[in-house]
Amino acid sequence: MGRLTHINSRGEASMVDVSSKPVQLREAVASGEIWLQTDTLKLIQSENIAKGNVLAAARLAGIMAAKKTGELIPLCHPLPISHCEVNFEFPETRDRIIIKASAKISAQTGVEMEALTAVSVAALTIYDMCKAVDKQMRITDIKLISKTKK
Amino acid sequence: MGRLTHINSRGEASMVDVSSKPVQLREAVASGEIWLQTDTLKLIQSENIAKGNVLAAARLAGIMAAKKTGELIPLCHPLPISHCEVNFEFPETRDRIIIKASAKISAQTGVEMEALTAVSVAALTIYDMCKAVDKQMRITDIKLISKTKK
Amino acid sequence: MGRLTHINSRGEASMVDVSSKPVQLREAVASGEIWLQTDTLKLIQSENIAKGNVLAAARLAGIMAAKKTGELIPLCHPLPISHCEVNFEFPETRDRIIIKASAKISAQTGVEMEALTAVSVAALTIYDMCKAVDKQMRITDIKLISKTKK
Amino acid sequence: MGRLTHINSRGEASMVDVSSKPVQLREAVASGEIWLQTDTLKLIQSENIAKGNVLAAARLAGIMAAKKTGELIPLCHPLPISHCEVNFEFPETRDRIIIKASAKISAQTGVEMEALTAVSVAALTIYDMCKAVDKQMRITDIKLISKTKK
Amino acid sequence: MGRLTHINSRGEASMVDVSSKPVQLREAVASGEIWLQTDTLKLIQSENIAKGNVLAAARLAGIMAAKKTGELIPLCHPLPISHCEVNFEFPETRDRIIIKASAKISAQTGVEMEALTAVSVAALTIYDMCKAVDKQMRITDIKLISKTKK
Amino acid sequence: MGRLTHINSRGEASMVDVSSKPVQLREAVASGEIWLQTDTLKLIQSENIAKGNVLAAARLAGIMAAKKTGELIPLCHPLPISHCEVNFEFPETRDRIIIKASAKISAQTGVEMEALTAVSVAALTIYDMCKAVDKQMRITDIKLISKTKK
Repeated sequence: MGRLTHINSRGEASMVDVSSKPVQLREAVASGEIWLQTDTLKLIQSENIAKGNVLAAARLAGIMAAKKTGELIPLCHPLPISHCEVNFEFPETRDRIIIKASAKISAQTGVEMEALTAVSVAALTIYDMCKAVDKQMRITDIKLISKTKK
Repeated sequence: MGRLTHINSRGEASMVDVSSKPVQLREAVASGEIWLQTDTLKLIQSENIAKGNVLAAARLAGIMAAKKTGELIPLCHPLPISHCEVNFEFPETRDRIIIKASAKISAQTGVEMEALTAVSVAALTIYDMCKAVDKQMRITDIKLISKTKK
Repeated sequence: MGRLTHINSRGEASMVDVSSKPVQLREAVASGEIWLQTDTLKLIQSENIAKGNVLAAARLAGIMAAKKTGELIPLCHPLPISHCEVNFEFPETRDRIIIKASAKISAQTGVEMEALTAVSVAALTIYDMCKAVDKQMRITDIKLISKTKK
Repeated sequence: MGRLTHINSRGEASMVDVSSKPVQLREAVASGEIWLQTDTLKLIQSENIAKGNVLAAARLAGIMAAKKTGELIPLCHPLPISHCEVNFEFPETRDRIIIKASAKISAQTGVEMEALTAVSVAALTIYDMCKAVDKQMRITDIKLISKTKK
Repeated sequence: MGRLTHINSRGEASMVDVSSKPVQLREAVASGEIWLQTDTLKLIQSENIAKGNVLAAARLAGIMAAKKTGELIPLCHPLPISHCEVNFEFPETRDRIIIKASAKISAQTGVEMEALTAVSVAALTIYDMCKAVDKQMRITDIKLISKTKK
Repeated sequence: MGRLTHINSRGEASMVDVSSKPVQLREAVASGEIWLQTDTLKLIQSENIAKGNVLAAARLAGIMAAKKTGELIPLCHPLPISHCEVNFEFPETRDRIIIKASAKISAQTGVEMEALTAVSVAALTIYDMCKAVDKQMRITDIKLISKTKK
């Protein structure tokens, strides 16, 4: 097993030096889930809020958070991403929302943290908007789905 | 079941109006987990990085993110929190780190989103600092533990 | 006519000292307009984008900007607002969208800049999302509607 | 008329994917106006405040806001701009200030939102600094003047 | 000598809990110096740039940074300050600029970091704006002058 | 002696236009000092806080501030830096900590402000974390050590 890349030879935190890595088109996809009550899901999807506001807010919050990743994660490089998308899936079990986020950039380092941050903040936004009606939500299974470069 | 508090009578998103709520001392505690390989955990805890840098970075990132909650979550109130703490536990199974965060404020609204955001960003920071050596990490079970006011 | 309050006796910019002003519940309402083509308005309101995403995005962007006012306007006090709402009206002439924003706080100073900033950024967001189909939009008539304290 | 570029095929908001667009030198110029009383204009330009503080503050606020555009407008790409300038003109009618802003970058997408944001925040800053002496200001006619790439 | 207040009993960083401290009017004054060549000072003060732009920019940057202190210093409380002022003095030796900043708030904790941050960023701004003509500037003697509460 | 580069021909502040400068690998190193009591230094380095939290916090705060330089210094270009490192030295006199920071980027303009900002904010963080036990700290001698491009 290797060494932790963000820790230099003296055991001190530093940004990984990517100055000599090639600029490549890099993409990452991450996903996560928020478990909630079926009634909460109904409220989110109901006509009442047919304008999709909870999901629209979560989507935008995720995208805006992806742009802030370098500000939130201490040793992440600040990256002017060229694309970010956040989508939602509703399994038939009606017990959760699956959140998927992708990010892209032409840069010297990848964007998996951007995709993971988008998922996390989209989930937190759903939590925030539903917490008055659902006291048992849980955000879970946030992970990287794929990471490519070319 | 009630209505979603962040959606007004026209189904449009808005910040909940807390202007007439009393100022009270409010506290919230949240937790979450990051699953990783035992070898990754060893590296984090080993003498090599005995200065505790991964956890120190995650702790600070969590605290700093708590202060940014109102900036990340669209309809959260901006809250000048009076306290935030992030701690870590290492279950004997050696397969994950449990993250706990608390936040406090004297204000008209509570700080559960601050505690949840601290946990999420602390977890993302561990992920970021270990992702070069561990490709299978997963952030899971982010939830509210308690919420009090007095 | 008085002196400019943000300029001290030496003609230098400084934040107005509100330390000795009373904490009062303060509210402000501002409005503004974005002129666009009828076809653009149709696209915004059409089924195609029935989820209301342009307006949902503009509404959230306006609310989030209100929270950032103290960061954008150099001599504005940073204010943890207790409420913000952004709404849209569609005059029958079908040539523009009227944007209204309100903000509230219990504080030593008012929130008119927060309301005006919410209107401005909501308008810029509509502009951004429609600029590929409409090259002649214009943001206009941004002004304060009312300002109260009690 | 085309489709709204920030809305994907499912009617959901997303950042436009500019990953495959060429890097080009792009420039945009925007303008806007703030209407105020002649006396307010005199105060701004008078010897009293001959250090130009109101305009200096508005200029800097506009430039700093241009750098924050990607943070304010939900679906704007974060862009490390290579130039920004904000200038003021004073029509002989003495009833308003005309604000002009330009922005430049070598990137895969343009900077009209940066120029428009600079104008808007410069105007809001003038409003903020003069609002104690002038209750009838109005910000108007914010629009794109030109947009070029080569 | 006491213990470091930001380090808890396990040696871990955390925000000091100020929840039970009284709200008091607190003020702090800090100062610092930037040493530069007499010719640089002349350029700053000369008619050429009589609009005071270097100092106006430094003043605003200092004030804006004071508002961001809680975002920059990991364990600082986010504080909605009620006043901030940045001033400059020019000793007769013509070899430096003395920067003084004050901050005020009614809160449960003081604002010395806000005053020190304002001084530091004002100095960095002077450095930035003069670095093309002066390669030997030095920022020095940043310290707290006074700290009061009542 | 030349003209101040950030002041245009009318004496107005603007970002230097770097659009036509070549993209080069640029690096800068800066240093600074914080003077403190020997007892404070002992506390920082003692077993009690052997996890290095004060220095870990200062290091991370410095790195994160480097990424925010364009947001703090009004006319600095926003730069997605590719590397930043902050280190500490402890002279045998035991009366201060020397802080060194380096920054790197491939861009059209250099990163000396990023290195200087990292040093300044790392020093302010040490100040903040030690201010309860040491009332006489002083931050001093912040300067550029080297600046290279190739």
